[in-house]
Amino acid sequence: MRIADARVIVTCPGRNFVTLKLVTDDGVTGVGDATLNGRELAVAAYLRDHVVPVLLGREAHRIEDTWQYLFQGAYWRRGPVTMTAIAAVDTALWDIKGKVAGLPVYQLLGGRSREGVTVYGHANGETVDDVLAEVGRFTELGYRAVRLQCGVPGLSSTYGVSGDRMFYEPADAAVPTENQWSTAAYLDFVPTLFRRAREEFGPGLALLHDVHHRLTPIEAARLGRALEPHGLFWLEDPVPADLQEGFRLIRGHTTTPIAVGEVINTIWDCAGLIREQLIDFIRCSVVHAGGITHLRRIFDLAALHHVRSGSHGATDLSPVCLAAALHLDISIPNFGLQEYMRHTAETDAVFPHGYHFADGYLHPGEEPGLGVDIDEDAAARHPYRPASLPVNRLADGTMHPW
Amino acid sequence: MRIADARVIVTCPGRNFVTLKLVTDDGVTGVGDATLNGRELAVAAYLRDHVVPVLLGREAHRIEDTWQYLFQGAYWRRGPVTMTAIAAVDTALWDIKGKVAGLPVYQLLGGRSREGVTVYGHANGETVDDVLAEVGRFTELGYRAVRLQCGVPGLSSTYGVSGDRMFYEPADAAVPTENQWSTAAYLDFVPTLFRRAREEFGPGLALLHDVHHRLTPIEAARLGRALEPHGLFWLEDPVPADLQEGFRLIRGHTTTPIAVGEVINTIWDCAGLIREQLIDFIRCSVVHAGGITHLRRIFDLAALHHVRSGSHGATDLSPVCLAAALHLDISIPNFGLQEYMRHTAETDAVFPHGYHFADGYLHPGEEPGLGVDIDEDAAARHPYRPASLPVNRLADGTMHPW
Amino acid sequence: MRIADARVIVTCPGRNFVTLKLVTDDGVTGVGDATLNGRELAVAAYLRDHVVPVLLGREAHRIEDTWQYLFQGAYWRRGPVTMTAIAAVDTALWDIKGKVAGLPVYQLLGGRSREGVTVYGHANGETVDDVLAEVGRFTELGYRAVRLQCGVPGLSSTYGVSGDRMFYEPADAAVPTENQWSTAAYLDFVPTLFRRAREEFGPGLALLHDVHHRLTPIEAARLGRALEPHGLFWLEDPVPADLQEGFRLIRGHTTTPIAVGEVINTIWDCAGLIREQLIDFIRCSVVHAGGITHLRRIFDLAALHHVRSGSHGATDLSPVCLAAALHLDISIPNFGLQEYMRHTAETDAVFPHGYHFADGYLHPGEEPGLGVDIDEDAAARHPYRPASLPVNRLADGTMHPW
Amino acid sequence: MRIADARVIVTCPGRNFVTLKLVTDDGVTGVGDATLNGRELAVAAYLRDHVVPVLLGREAHRIEDTWQYLFQGAYWRRGPVTMTAIAAVDTALWDIKGKVAGLPVYQLLGGRSREGVTVYGHANGETVDDVLAEVGRFTELGYRAVRLQCGVPGLSSTYGVSGDRMFYEPADAAVPTENQWSTAAYLDFVPTLFRRAREEFGPGLALLHDVHHRLTPIEAARLGRALEPHGLFWLEDPVPADLQEGFRLIRGHTTTPIAVGEVINTIWDCAGLIREQLIDFIRCSVVHAGGITHLRRIFDLAALHHVRSGSHGATDLSPVCLAAALHLDISIPNFGLQEYMRHTAETDAVFPHGYHFADGYLHPGEEPGLGVDIDEDAAARHPYRPASLPVNRLADGTMHPW
Repeated sequence: MRIADARVIVTCPGRNFVTLKLVTDDGVTGVGDATLNGRELAVAAYLRDHVVPVLLGREAHRIEDTWQYLFQGAYWRRGPVTMTAIAAVDTALWDIKGKVAGLPVYQLLGGRSREGVTVYGHANGETVDDVLAEVGRFTELGYRAVRLQCGVPGLSSTYGVSGDRMFYEPADAAVPTENQWSTAAYLDFVPTLFRRAREEFGPGLALLHDVHHRLTPIEAARLGRALEPHGLFWLEDPVPADLQEGFRLIRGHTTTPIAVGEVINTIWDCAGLIREQLIDFIRCSVVHAGGITHLRRIFDLAALHHVRSGSHGATDLSPVCLAAALHLDISIPNFGLQEYMRHTAETDAVFPHGYHFADGYLHPGEEPGLGVDIDEDAAARHPYRPASLPVNRLADGTMHPW
Repeated sequence: MRIADARVIVTCPGRNFVTLKLVTDDGVTGVGDATLNGRELAVAAYLRDHVVPVLLGREAHRIEDTWQYLFQGAYWRRGPVTMTAIAAVDTALWDIKGKVAGLPVYQLLGGRSREGVTVYGHANGETVDDVLAEVGRFTELGYRAVRLQCGVPGLSSTYGVSGDRMFYEPADAAVPTENQWSTAAYLDFVPTLFRRAREEFGPGLALLHDVHHRLTPIEAARLGRALEPHGLFWLEDPVPADLQEGFRLIRGHTTTPIAVGEVINTIWDCAGLIREQLIDFIRCSVVHAGGITHLRRIFDLAALHHVRSGSHGATDLSPVCLAAALHLDISIPNFGLQEYMRHTAETDAVFPHGYHFADGYLHPGEEPGLGVDIDEDAAARHPYRPASLPVNRLADGTMHPW
Repeated sequence: MRIADARVIVTCPGRNFVTLKLVTDDGVTGVGDATLNGRELAVAAYLRDHVVPVLLGREAHRIEDTWQYLFQGAYWRRGPVTMTAIAAVDTALWDIKGKVAGLPVYQLLGGRSREGVTVYGHANGETVDDVLAEVGRFTELGYRAVRLQCGVPGLSSTYGVSGDRMFYEPADAAVPTENQWSTAAYLDFVPTLFRRAREEFGPGLALLHDVHHRLTPIEAARLGRALEPHGLFWLEDPVPADLQEGFRLIRGHTTTPIAVGEVINTIWDCAGLIREQLIDFIRCSVVHAGGITHLRRIFDLAALHHVRSGSHGATDLSPVCLAAALHLDISIPNFGLQEYMRHTAETDAVFPHGYHFADGYLHPGEEPGLGVDIDEDAAARHPYRPASLPVNRLADGTMHPW
Repeated sequence: MRIADARVIVTCPGRNFVTLKLVTDDGVTGVGDATLNGRELAVAAYLRDHVVPVLLGREAHRIEDTWQYLFQGAYWRRGPVTMTAIAAVDTALWDIKGKVAGLPVYQLLGGRSREGVTVYGHANGETVDDVLAEVGRFTELGYRAVRLQCGVPGLSSTYGVSGDRMFYEPADAAVPTENQWSTAAYLDFVPTLFRRAREEFGPGLALLHDVHHRLTPIEAARLGRALEPHGLFWLEDPVPADLQEGFRLIRGHTTTPIAVGEVINTIWDCAGLIREQLIDFIRCSVVHAGGITHLRRIFDLAALHHVRSGSHGATDLSPVCLAAALHLDISIPNFGLQEYMRHTAETDAVFPHGYHFADGYLHPGEEPGLGVDIDEDAAARHPYRPASLPVNRLADGTMHPW
């Protein structure tokens, strides 16, 4: 069974997605997400110009060998563009293998380890009251976990806060929006948000917060400790993960659990964080961390070190990626939590899928393979539109992590 | 698809084997090796009395959950008896899953990463000439790698040396044979063996040696350095692996590659050796290291740390275990070398299998599942016979690792 | 003086026990506990089929050599089944040696280092009030230390809590009971229990708590810190001990003393915890840690590193094991605390013994040997009944440490 | 002075190059190399579709801010495609700044620290005699340092060896060539090559060797030790650098100097190697390590730790990159050695430049800026042709680092 066709499909049903579709000589198809938010066309070119030519004619069953071929064979390893392209191939091959086996992919990964995939939603708002109202909407929908992001008093705009709440999309302009940042204002304000949330929703609801890489380690340590009375489920991306020793300082000061991973592309980029137990949740995604084959290895390394999974699942990850994540989530022993931002109806129409939400859980469905496809005709009706993630600056104009 | 029957079969076609056979309510069967040389009936009781009752009625597709259920649920974790019992269940479930998928198990593990599984044979003899003659037999058969064990001048008997060469079985008596040991005689002699072998067979043949846990770290360091001119492929089990820091000393003194693992039962028992890169080959077996599910995790941890696989494959591992090892061997990225001691014709008749040797490689075959079965009628004709591994004593009578 | 007979006795006076009884050619008898809760028949087979044949005819005085013979000679070392079997032999040989010397075993271990063995009891209950009432019963009985386990509000069942309080037995069904677990609910609740207990019983009573391996390191760190105001004597088994680095994180965050050990089988399995002073009490048992010979070595290593003993003593350890523990407890310099769950009258009748409780202490008695025996006729009246420890699952169905 | 135009130019004068050309509203132009061998069009798309739109209108003097804008603003950091794109912008802005200042770029970097840039050439051949003849050609040309790569007896092809010697290009086919590899044959052979070279050229000539990531740490340790008698200047890329702990093992066994870096893209990817002094030369390139701004920081960190520079300079780095490297080389305090593979006349015609070779040194020239340009008309006459780097497989078909 060889790969006979490979198509790179770029579509924008509300936001941009890149999808790789493979077709075997037997006519079996497989899909893989290749979306890198704001850098979509670089991955599309990587696949179309450099990967597709070597895929044609390859044995579709050889997932591991193909992964190594693309990883080692490129010579230039790692990084978001490369690993997203490899992920798309890997995911599509697992989809094909599941269909050939007549089994949903999770069965090939060892079968169910749980009945459903617990998810968390995003409660955003300009004010604490707004955020708490949003939290209430999620709990009414059955969510067991919610991420809270709030406008910071005195700052004109903050990532994670928008008028359009359920379908919030940060890549909101062709040229990046410039936000303003003040660590002092932020650190002063955040504990209030969580004190209020805990008071209103009691001890049972898992509360999360995303720092979005904006603090230094000592600042993050201070925040983590300040939030301890409110029992957060996790504090996400407290500092940039480039230098992993930075987490030692946080770790020495607070028992607030730490989650990291959406910007990490390989096991080598997080091995130090995991082996030294500097984090509690590893949040890598299928699409940006080399596909199912590689992400499973990251999760296995995590399991050995008391670290649980916390898959990234923002809307810039297509339904193809979400489906793949659910197959991993339901099968691994050390699942933690799955992010779930709902795609728009437009996006869902382009990516028909079998997974569904019920009672706070996502369920991957029982169709062979991943249980998701791309409607190429629908995709063609939504041409690419340039969109960039915002940037962040301090009051004096200094660039700051967004 | 639920487990409807589970049978523990003890048979002795020349040597003892314990096999678990599972049958689903659909009539699909799966087999797993449960042989622990010299402690067979403890594993048989563990399975028959404590595991089979909880298997009946369980969903056969839930391999990971069943593994965790048996591992966490036993409360008393780890150790050779426990992990061998869990391995048997895990292996049988992978066999079933492959058959349900209509695919050989290696396809479920990511597909082929190579065309064949390179194996090494055992060249044993009382004298260097005997050993070299045996090496010649293996090279004529196409082997690319041979393990050399030689009688030590002045010692009456040595493990790994016997009259019956191709089918050598160390568990040779109901009550253990007592061998005699002298580290001084051994260290003085071994370099000669390898100098002679390298002279006779040139640089192309991979030469291996098994120390069988008999040295202290500084002795092993001395031996490793003494063997450097002869370019060994690996030096196996130089010291007991119970205290892993012991390997640091070896590692600081010699570049002779180190292989460890046949007595290791879990990833926690070798994580230190691997993460600190104190070894080069991890030689755990499917049957004694928790099955395909767990051994794959060990191999993945190894791959991250530049350590390759070197699966144990002595004749006390049944053809069921060998088949399972081959499916892992052919699929993982970091395969190193597979031990291959040939089973007798009697054993092969009890365990019909599809794998075969050709040109120095073993090939797992293309049948769905593991491609190996147990002929229960044939098995019944070979009742259990007590047999023990030997023990070792110094000249003064002190117990010494065998 | 050689071993002339060796009998493996399985009996169920309320719960299952496995006992090894050795008889010398002089007619001296010795007993050793070989009970591994829920896996009893695996140990019985290990002993009966693989150990008894090599014991017959051996010199009964050679305790050390026999230990090494069974440990090194089995080739497959460590693990609960193996070490329980070795422990039974070792314990029985110490019993024999004491009788031959005409001395209680503690005299052979160096004699008394204290007048009595301080014990702790188990106060369990569905509510805080229930638990505190139980604590009161123990203080009235003279106990100086009590372990508190309470039902967690919102969870239907919790290990360590039962209607039958004084003789609670977790192995309550042939097929494991499935409990449900919520870390969030647990962490939120436990500090209240200990605040109330300290308020009611004042600073003098030693309060203990068993986490039963259910937390991750950062969760355990949080709990340890939250309990600091209530001055626990120890916090037991906060996380699974498989990966010992996990304890560093706990250790960096809290001064609540940590106790670990009931699932540990050898000195190699706890050497890291002890040498790095990651724990304060090592709670291994005679029966699961290789007998008196090996457990004494663990306690010696502990003494070097400021770690005290804290012997495990649940009712699945027979009176034979408890007697052996008391001889160690009374003699070693670094004794900490002895767990004491009372056996039922039925059990006591099968195992007549000389140790007794008085004023918060256990006393080993002054009979030669261990001062405990098995009434084989009584034992025969209680045939084995399958019983399993429970398992634990999260709300989504994920397996969780029990 | 704002950026008014930005053009991404792909050309293939013998081999593919990607070049970014910026033009300010004042009409000042600057060029930056953006070539990523075998993945050229991914970088071209990254620049054209995602970077150029945000460059237009930006202040051309703000090199640092633009670097941070592109690095932090992309959100998805690091990796070869991203860092190559950023490097192109950074290099072009330095070119502009030099021209605006009327100074060669090295003057802006602190001025000359030496008179010329010592380079090494590539002596390749199928046999030792061939290689030594090539070495002789280089010494006649005045080279003070030569890298030796030789065909390995018994292997049909080896990277670094070709018929076309002075202008060897490994990316030799649209679909990757598959080479075969044998570590045993290689390790057995290499010491002979260097013994012969040292005998023939005496102690004065710096001899280098590139292992091309093909060994494990222990194999590299053995090779390093075996080469010690021949006094190598450096041993390059002994193992894949993904897991940097691997270098500790090499470092403990040999004093042969180690060079690493051509596949490294950021300071975070080599900080461990440098801070722990696991290497002696850091060989990152301007084009693949984020431009002059970022590479200077890597070299500064290296200087602190006794590590010298060793810029990568294969022909897949365009004359624009080589020029930029020379400005860094001539100015930094810890310069080590510069690789110099000569571009073809065709390439030189497309990239007119002022640097020149004399007496074993390269000299950057004295023109303002980088002293290199792209002739866009000439470039247009050489359209892109797909070309891939080869891959490597073991005899059994396993993928191996190329």
